[in-house]
Amino acid sequence: MNRVPLEGKVLNENARVAAELRERFRQHRVLVVNLISSPGSGKTTLLEKTLENLPTAERVAVLTGDLQTENDANRLKRYGFPVKQIVTGGTCHLDARMIEKHIADWDFAKLDLLIIENVGNLVCPSSYDLGEAAKIVLLSVTEGEDKPLKYPSIFFKSELMVLTKTDLLPYVPFDIQEAVENARRVHPEIEMLRVSCLTGNGLRDWLNWLERRKRTFLADVAETVA
Amino acid sequence: MNRVPLEGKVLNENARVAAELRERFRQHRVLVVNLISSPGSGKTTLLEKTLENLPTAERVAVLTGDLQTENDANRLKRYGFPVKQIVTGGTCHLDARMIEKHIADWDFAKLDLLIIENVGNLVCPSSYDLGEAAKIVLLSVTEGEDKPLKYPSIFFKSELMVLTKTDLLPYVPFDIQEAVENARRVHPEIEMLRVSCLTGNGLRDWLNWLERRKRTFLADVAETVA
Repeated sequence: MNRVPLEGKVLNENARVAAELRERFRQHRVLVVNLISSPGSGKTTLLEKTLENLPTAERVAVLTGDLQTENDANRLKRYGFPVKQIVTGGTCHLDARMIEKHIADWDFAKLDLLIIENVGNLVCPSSYDLGEAAKIVLLSVTEGEDKPLKYPSIFFKSELMVLTKTDLLPYVPFDIQEAVENARRVHPEIEMLRVSCLTGNGLRDWLNWLERRKRTFLADVAETVA
Repeated sequence: MNRVPLEGKVLNENARVAAELRERFRQHRVLVVNLISSPGSGKTTLLEKTLENLPTAERVAVLTGDLQTENDANRLKRYGFPVKQIVTGGTCHLDARMIEKHIADWDFAKLDLLIIENVGNLVCPSSYDLGEAAKIVLLSVTEGEDKPLKYPSIFFKSELMVLTKTDLLPYVPFDIQEAVENARRVHPEIEMLRVSCLTGNGLRDWLNWLERRKRTFLADVAETVA
């Protein structure tokens, strides 16, 4: 099958558009993060809790991807921040063109943070650069501690792993230490957080992480410009 | 992007090989089922419990797919049935050629049932026919009742939906009636089972389903041959 050459072409074209997006995000000093996980690991719920806890003056926007339905955007719109749904119509990942198209009418001068929620898929989204400053992988404790070894690409490319649904730890056979070791075997420098959106445990750490990441992003941009 | 025509070509080639496999499975009267779900929904655990509960005289074999690692095959081999790991090396789904290659040295005259465990991915595997008689989708109750609407293709193509990890129902905000309705909206005839591999609840129903499905498969083959 002549799949590989064409995939290369598609990925090269995606990389070109992503580089343009990255440049644009940097010029406007907008930190962009790309949330990736399996279906049902809690990306949308984490976003709900994030938006719920941010001051309404916060300059944040969300792009949320799904194969079908506008459900996630509807869930996220009630917090008053700009939210757009990207319906991929069957495509298993977001790509840079989709981002470019959906932000066309947004004024980036009015934003500090853009959170992209990718399609629920632990494999394909890892290959598509969206111009983000950081990929973030979510892993729910119900999924098993072996996932970093089985899906190494996304754990290798992510700056941060958020362990979600930690309130379920008493009820599932999940060895948190082994999960940490597996993630470190794939990516020794990966940062880690533990969050339960049900109890709120760890949410503050996550919000602090985003704040800190905004600062390092701005410092990095300032350095490059200077 | 000229992605669609090439994908069509790849899928046509896959369909051709899958049709050959299907014919071969039917000639040897081997029921083949293709298990599909998100990462961490419990495919391997369900297979462990299945093999553990089958009489050792049962003529069953397993092919298990992953991007990386032989972990699943190692977990499954200790039950004494033939098991082979397919390591896709990054590819997000199994395809018919991989199946053809990995069964090349198996004697199908000695089998009644082949269970294929696909790569953990609720999107891409739904597009690749493996010559199976039935696709089976697993959905764990931790993933949310909205998944059939968000990932309709696989729920539409599956004969059976197995709700897994039902022991966690008291601890998760999962509306089982809504999950059933969502699955039926996408696929009115889909069959459903509820299983907890931790408590064993529903396991007998699953084993009975496989038995029944073997009989309808054999009846169907006999009819076509007659």
